[in-house]
Amino acid sequence: MQNKRGFASDNNAGIHPEILKALEMANDGHVIAYGDDPYTEKAIENFRRIFGKDVEVFFVFNGTAANVLGITAITRSFHAIICSDLAHLNVDECGAPEKYTGCKLLIVPSPDGKLTPDGVAGHLHGFGFEHHAQPKVVSITQATEMGTVYTPYEITALAELAHSKGLYLHMDGARIANAAVSLGRGFREITVDAGVDILSFGGTKNGVMLGEAIIFFNPELSRDFKYIRKQGMQLGSKMRFISAQFSALLENDLWRQNAEHANEMAQYLAEKIEQIPEIKITQLVQANAVFAIFPAELIPELQKKYFFYVWNEATCEVRWMTSFDTTREDVDGFVAEIQKLLGYKGIRYKRG
Amino acid sequence: MQNKRGFASDNNAGIHPEILKALEMANDGHVIAYGDDPYTEKAIENFRRIFGKDVEVFFVFNGTAANVLGITAITRSFHAIICSDLAHLNVDECGAPEKYTGCKLLIVPSPDGKLTPDGVAGHLHGFGFEHHAQPKVVSITQATEMGTVYTPYEITALAELAHSKGLYLHMDGARIANAAVSLGRGFREITVDAGVDILSFGGTKNGVMLGEAIIFFNPELSRDFKYIRKQGMQLGSKMRFISAQFSALLENDLWRQNAEHANEMAQYLAEKIEQIPEIKITQLVQANAVFAIFPAELIPELQKKYFFYVWNEATCEVRWMTSFDTTREDVDGFVAEIQKLLGYKGIRYKRG
Amino acid sequence: MQNKRGFASDNNAGIHPEILKALEMANDGHVIAYGDDPYTEKAIENFRRIFGKDVEVFFVFNGTAANVLGITAITRSFHAIICSDLAHLNVDECGAPEKYTGCKLLIVPSPDGKLTPDGVAGHLHGFGFEHHAQPKVVSITQATEMGTVYTPYEITALAELAHSKGLYLHMDGARIANAAVSLGRGFREITVDAGVDILSFGGTKNGVMLGEAIIFFNPELSRDFKYIRKQGMQLGSKMRFISAQFSALLENDLWRQNAEHANEMAQYLAEKIEQIPEIKITQLVQANAVFAIFPAELIPELQKKYFFYVWNEATCEVRWMTSFDTTREDVDGFVAEIQKLLGYKGIRYKRG
Amino acid sequence: MQNKRGFASDNNAGIHPEILKALEMANDGHVIAYGDDPYTEKAIENFRRIFGKDVEVFFVFNGTAANVLGITAITRSFHAIICSDLAHLNVDECGAPEKYTGCKLLIVPSPDGKLTPDGVAGHLHGFGFEHHAQPKVVSITQATEMGTVYTPYEITALAELAHSKGLYLHMDGARIANAAVSLGRGFREITVDAGVDILSFGGTKNGVMLGEAIIFFNPELSRDFKYIRKQGMQLGSKMRFISAQFSALLENDLWRQNAEHANEMAQYLAEKIEQIPEIKITQLVQANAVFAIFPAELIPELQKKYFFYVWNEATCEVRWMTSFDTTREDVDGFVAEIQKLLGYKGIRYKRG
Repeated sequence: MQNKRGFASDNNAGIHPEILKALEMANDGHVIAYGDDPYTEKAIENFRRIFGKDVEVFFVFNGTAANVLGITAITRSFHAIICSDLAHLNVDECGAPEKYTGCKLLIVPSPDGKLTPDGVAGHLHGFGFEHHAQPKVVSITQATEMGTVYTPYEITALAELAHSKGLYLHMDGARIANAAVSLGRGFREITVDAGVDILSFGGTKNGVMLGEAIIFFNPELSRDFKYIRKQGMQLGSKMRFISAQFSALLENDLWRQNAEHANEMAQYLAEKIEQIPEIKITQLVQANAVFAIFPAELIPELQKKYFFYVWNEATCEVRWMTSFDTTREDVDGFVAEIQKLLGYKGIRYKRG
Repeated sequence: MQNKRGFASDNNAGIHPEILKALEMANDGHVIAYGDDPYTEKAIENFRRIFGKDVEVFFVFNGTAANVLGITAITRSFHAIICSDLAHLNVDECGAPEKYTGCKLLIVPSPDGKLTPDGVAGHLHGFGFEHHAQPKVVSITQATEMGTVYTPYEITALAELAHSKGLYLHMDGARIANAAVSLGRGFREITVDAGVDILSFGGTKNGVMLGEAIIFFNPELSRDFKYIRKQGMQLGSKMRFISAQFSALLENDLWRQNAEHANEMAQYLAEKIEQIPEIKITQLVQANAVFAIFPAELIPELQKKYFFYVWNEATCEVRWMTSFDTTREDVDGFVAEIQKLLGYKGIRYKRG
Repeated sequence: MQNKRGFASDNNAGIHPEILKALEMANDGHVIAYGDDPYTEKAIENFRRIFGKDVEVFFVFNGTAANVLGITAITRSFHAIICSDLAHLNVDECGAPEKYTGCKLLIVPSPDGKLTPDGVAGHLHGFGFEHHAQPKVVSITQATEMGTVYTPYEITALAELAHSKGLYLHMDGARIANAAVSLGRGFREITVDAGVDILSFGGTKNGVMLGEAIIFFNPELSRDFKYIRKQGMQLGSKMRFISAQFSALLENDLWRQNAEHANEMAQYLAEKIEQIPEIKITQLVQANAVFAIFPAELIPELQKKYFFYVWNEATCEVRWMTSFDTTREDVDGFVAEIQKLLGYKGIRYKRG
Repeated sequence: MQNKRGFASDNNAGIHPEILKALEMANDGHVIAYGDDPYTEKAIENFRRIFGKDVEVFFVFNGTAANVLGITAITRSFHAIICSDLAHLNVDECGAPEKYTGCKLLIVPSPDGKLTPDGVAGHLHGFGFEHHAQPKVVSITQATEMGTVYTPYEITALAELAHSKGLYLHMDGARIANAAVSLGRGFREITVDAGVDILSFGGTKNGVMLGEAIIFFNPELSRDFKYIRKQGMQLGSKMRFISAQFSALLENDLWRQNAEHANEMAQYLAEKIEQIPEIKITQLVQANAVFAIFPAELIPELQKKYFFYVWNEATCEVRWMTSFDTTREDVDGFVAEIQKLLGYKGIRYKRG
């Protein structure tokens, strides 16, 4: 190995060996392109086994597209999408949702990345008033961008509010496996059973090379989606190599194993960090991220050894993430480096 | 092997073993996501070695995006794109160019898939007239959708015409390796040296799992492209797994080996088909496709054994394609099946 | 009067005095903006009196918007619009349909500006095939851009074909009054009764200052149109001044009087031109346009006196249009000028 | 007169008699359509006389288009627009800016409708980071949607900040005449001289029937604007009737007379309202609007007599606007009606 593992992001990790093996197994002869192949059929079956036999499943290349095209399917351009100010949809897509859907984003401040019914309700007005972009979608991220997790009850409350006003509930599940494991629930309980209408099911951050799935719980909503995906530049020709990865992820509970491990490593890292008084953890550690206020002057020093992202320049809040391949030794080494920078000699936990 | 090789399309093939090996080699530890990694740096170097040190290179997931986003970089929505009526851009993208660029497509009839200066000139009017979408791009496909190939002289003639009127010359190089091999020329001679401004360099149809590169020969044109790619939903997070494939393709001339083989197999197929009087080859076989008029009543029969596409329902023109992994035995078996359907007993070539 | 009347276009004319008077009458106190006013209510009633009580009517500023936003209401971006190669929608909107609807235009060559079922049928394929923009609208212009007129039977044939495949029939009625008068039919007979689903009802070319109406014959299709109009930048605040013009046009048959006069003047012009052997009329004169091949060298000379458009530079085909305010003296003067240029001495009709 | 004057909006008013007269005067013979006419030439001269000889001027139908298309000219879809949360651009356009420009709106809370450098600075980050929509425009409204007015110094401060980061300063001048009069400044001092790059110059709210002008202070920025306007569905054919209105507005200082009167009437109304202790004025009255908290239970009663808009349902803040045709008697009658509803007997001002 030449490339060190770090804590910058779960998408800095590579491919889980089982996924890579699935790519090799799928590399066999010719199959029809664009998804009319047995690998894709099997992957869809795997999703239906989990989410119910009526769901419709479509594969795309990445999470931006999963979210944007999924929302395209359930909106027209005069609609509005309600989301957290911290939502990936809002801050990290270079305006892709606005450009592609034409919709306005209505933003709710959310310090922990989670929408609340109260926050959403503040945007539920102007229905029927043509000067106002018409609210049509509530979009939540599970686990959130801040490493927090919605309970099924919280999701249900948002779904009920959304549905009562004719809106859909969209879930950006880039890290849905981490959320499911965190909650000790199955995928179905935290999505369709809780009222979610459409789900971006993430693979990339959980050990897949690339690929995301869009799950329509109401098949009617997916009626035109094949055209939307194609026109949206997201129809892969050798699709078997995306679908085969998802079968590998879903069979034998590899998704669970990977997410459990990443979450455990985040807990382990948080426990160690909590014992360092110079660092203050700022968010509940419920998935595979640790957010913390870190001494400003040491950030560049630590980044020389371990690249990571400063989340908030003003407050020196940083983000550290674990992944399926993080080891205890990785965490120990990282914490030791931090301690070294802080001037620690030996183990100095639990200082009073 | 469970999946039979056929002649439906070069994207029905899988991954070349060297490419798959490159994926495995790149699956090593953590690297920074979104392209700031050594694999991507190396792949770009490989492209610069071939095309010149000043070119700018961007990777995207598929050919639709390579064409649409590349053209987005050099147009505004009130521009028009001149292309062949048979161009993939025109007939096979479900309107992606119009939706994403906002531009009008101006179509030139072209029985062999090739634009001519005369055909292009017919659309070079209305400059400065605000009612008319302003021509800004001539887009050609190399090799064409009909398996034909532009000579460097033909490309230069189109480039000179385009440039004389302030238009750019865009090349959809989904099968540029097949064209280069067919012409016995290097990539540079048939692109930048011939006047091409921007190139979609295809990998998928030449043994790559997925991935295309956009090459800007004038770096100034690429200034904003990183935003266009991101907003265009085509920025891959684990980009190393796309770039590593291209390094494998470009190093050791794997691209050439693959394309040479596919082209040879098309020649071999064409030679055999030419000896069957019931079938009429309709296009020059210059790359890896054979187009032919096939007896209508036998099409469904043959498709049961070997799936392929009917290009023109009205004329019973069909398309057969070869790929990097096509074998002589595959061709022999396919031709034998055709002969069997035609009622041949034994070898009956060269009937007179 | 300072500005001479000419034959360049019916939109070079001004406002009919009755329309101007209606503007003055509507200029009375305050009314609620954006269409919730008695003038707009009355204009809609006038349209319902003519087209049926269930139609939905929306006013916009110009014909580009009437066509583009009307089609937006009945399409999604992955759809395609079938129209004549000469359609205003195709050649004179600087790509507005593509930019705003995202749809592909599928073009049918039509020397007289009229679509035929055969021509349309050539594009009725690829349904359900995701690579192909899905045909959803047939758009015809009545009277056409070439001054020809569809009969009700021709419209019905197109409507039946369109509907049989799940497409809508859209009519660009920029000059529908001229067509109705030409056919001796009522508006209803040549639109909804013939199978038209949505109509752009033109006012500007028939004596109105500015304003067009979009008529939905199936109210369900207009359900979201108020949002589409607003987001489409076409909701006028002082809407009463658009609607009042339409009431003036529709009441007392002013529309008919204006169109009858314009058509008569075109006939009168055509009769005179027919007698000049150096000029060849190229299209049936069925509405208010005369198309003719004119001696190339004299075009600039005539344009110095009377500005008009050369329709086809290659063939020297020119377009002359009459309007509600054209007089016999205008025609006589124009023809005399032509004769003078041709070197005529006195009246030399019927030579030969 | 049948229609009562009220206080709902300045666009509920009609056309100033001088403007109507200009329409009549322009209704003379034929002129070339689409703006190549002497009336439009003269209107542009009038604007150049005021703003400088190098400005470029384009007419469109309404304010939505003036803002959206003006911003289209200076952005690409991956850019972001910084504006007040109360900006018309943000709340009253049904998402037109997002749909048409593709840009993200970055919102700054602003209780009085005015942006401050501090507020803007909060969004000036992420430059060069491809995940982030790139800030490119600061848009301010003058007078603001809350009836307040930016001083030239405030505008200059925003312009300097914007320009220092490569952004443009856009001004929505739907009520710029009211602002100029309020400040006692000329148009030039509060726009180009203060650093504004592009201006939507409003006519409709100041006595015009319909029409807005887009003024580019840097002609280079307008280079492609004629195509943008046409593709944006805002090129009027009988343009003389829009331009002639602007000449009437700008000549003889009609713009000033109208705005001065409207502002005076707002002051007069505010003075009277201030004396009613049950009503609390919430914003500085600097232009032609009065915002006030009004007793909730009486709002529907008052609306029966005088329609007006409730600005904030939660706080019972209402908006009353005056216009060029408001009379002192109108104000007296309105205030008397309010007093009657409040149970006043006779004049009871200045209660202690």
